[in-house]
Amino acid sequence: MAQAKRIVLASRPVGEPKPSDFRTEEVPVPTPGDGEVLLRTIWLSLDPYMRGRMNDGPSYAAPVPIGGVMEAGTVNEVIASNNPGFAKGDIVLARAGWQTHALSDGKGLAKIDPKLAPISTAVGVLGMPGMTAYTGLLDIGQPQAGETVVVAAASGAVGSAVGQIAKIKGARAVGIAGGKDKCDFVKKELGFDECLDHRDPDLAAKLKAACPKGIDVYFENVGGAVFEAVFPLLNNFARVPVCGLIAHYNDRQAAAPKWAGAMMFAVLTKRLTIRGFIVSDFAARRADFLRDMSGWVREGKVKYKEFVTEGLDSAPDAFMGLLKGANFGKQLVRVGPDKA
Amino acid sequence: MAQAKRIVLASRPVGEPKPSDFRTEEVPVPTPGDGEVLLRTIWLSLDPYMRGRMNDGPSYAAPVPIGGVMEAGTVNEVIASNNPGFAKGDIVLARAGWQTHALSDGKGLAKIDPKLAPISTAVGVLGMPGMTAYTGLLDIGQPQAGETVVVAAASGAVGSAVGQIAKIKGARAVGIAGGKDKCDFVKKELGFDECLDHRDPDLAAKLKAACPKGIDVYFENVGGAVFEAVFPLLNNFARVPVCGLIAHYNDRQAAAPKWAGAMMFAVLTKRLTIRGFIVSDFAARRADFLRDMSGWVREGKVKYKEFVTEGLDSAPDAFMGLLKGANFGKQLVRVGPDKA
Repeated sequence: MAQAKRIVLASRPVGEPKPSDFRTEEVPVPTPGDGEVLLRTIWLSLDPYMRGRMNDGPSYAAPVPIGGVMEAGTVNEVIASNNPGFAKGDIVLARAGWQTHALSDGKGLAKIDPKLAPISTAVGVLGMPGMTAYTGLLDIGQPQAGETVVVAAASGAVGSAVGQIAKIKGARAVGIAGGKDKCDFVKKELGFDECLDHRDPDLAAKLKAACPKGIDVYFENVGGAVFEAVFPLLNNFARVPVCGLIAHYNDRQAAAPKWAGAMMFAVLTKRLTIRGFIVSDFAARRADFLRDMSGWVREGKVKYKEFVTEGLDSAPDAFMGLLKGANFGKQLVRVGPDKA
Repeated sequence: MAQAKRIVLASRPVGEPKPSDFRTEEVPVPTPGDGEVLLRTIWLSLDPYMRGRMNDGPSYAAPVPIGGVMEAGTVNEVIASNNPGFAKGDIVLARAGWQTHALSDGKGLAKIDPKLAPISTAVGVLGMPGMTAYTGLLDIGQPQAGETVVVAAASGAVGSAVGQIAKIKGARAVGIAGGKDKCDFVKKELGFDECLDHRDPDLAAKLKAACPKGIDVYFENVGGAVFEAVFPLLNNFARVPVCGLIAHYNDRQAAAPKWAGAMMFAVLTKRLTIRGFIVSDFAARRADFLRDMSGWVREGKVKYKEFVTEGLDSAPDAFMGLLKGANFGKQLVRVGPDKA
């Protein structure tokens, strides 16, 4: 009998996840029942939010149970179907998690047309990360021509789209990324106006120099030292869409800036807007997003970079690396070939 | 020669203002020049924001200089006019500050029709405090029918209007005020669903009981212990218009809640909106405000309470009391009679 492989949550991490928090299991490839399809995973998307799912406690989504398959958005091929909505060979966007095979009753699956774009983009620039950038920046950040937009993790899946959309809207885009190679890529390939290294001990001073007219939109996906450098530079009426705090995912207590005492006063006197969001809050914007973003990608106005590791077994290391910024571009795991 | 009296800032307070931070001066009543009017002050409005003007340092408005007349919104009579736009006897809304007489070139003066409403309401329910409540609650808070709105200083000029407008919009209104008399007034006279005493050591538990469906809008005008009690009860997608932090005006460093480490995570996972504002940001809503609020006052849907001290000399003590919640209703100083 053919074997499937899956990676489950072995224990809840304390601080940084470690290899023993994950466990690989081999099980028989399941057989689809009435109305079900059998999916083979091609692409597995790794994203920072998954760190939150490893914790117990209140959040916007239920935690992965101990022993449960790690969650993830995936691109899959239908390899057997008892569901009239799907045929063998269909490529679909799914949430099959960290495993080679999965069953689905078809709910929540979306067909992908491989002729329109590389299928991996369905979990990248044309998927959740791209839509996170699009809705957070445009619906909350609302950058105006001539304003300054700052985003961290600027070579990553979300940050790279944020800065490029900001440029499309006529704003100045300043990125923050880890290391010279990423910064060069962000400036030269993605066309940001400036990109700074978050490891630079002079980050605050350099950010100030890079934002001579202050900051109007800070797209918050990291927290930590970047937030501390950004906050004093926020202009009156600045908007701070909050979609992530990756610098704090391993240590929530640290999420307050050292000068938190001044924060609510800045909110008041500068009339700041700080607003958290999750991409699903903007589900109604999906058609707009797909129309605009696929157009921008086609026209070369939005570029994307993928960072691929090979094989499901690579997922834990790749995920632990992602939380430390070891990836350079959208982190993907190739679980299987495009065509079986 | 007739004498005028004015109260100037003698020194910048460290912590709570004290009597020696103010100085009373007597000067001759000034003579209006070409294009000027001479104003006699009838009502002087005392408001918490004035504490901020006593500090040096960045804010949304310049500080009062040492030796300068304390700022305030006022209701005045024109007692001499060299300006064709104003006649002797006109009643006007002005920013004449803490003084019995002032000159004006007419800019920024707005005529008040004494037949429409008591003229004191021009600095109260139909003035800046009322419009602060109206715009912050409706434009930022956006309460929906069935939602829960919480506001502190609920017997004061802003808070009382916030809760009553929330009720008009079909929301549950929960107030917080200092002491039984104020709480009784807020519930029985103003019609809030509940009012809690902020001095109650069980405030957090009682607030939770008073908000069985959580909190959807918290109109922030105090900070401190109230904010700490409110924050854990905020629902997903809750809105927090921030218009004041009176609990911290004497000590800005204390403006961070003890658990600030969790705050940005709550913003993210609950998708909160925290937005600072100043009433002048919504100047375009003035006609809407006057139409709605004057209608509600006429219909008895919005009631207001005034807390009057007599004579300009009473202003420093009244202001120091205001910062401690000694007032019961909108704090006004009667500087002169309605008709000279």
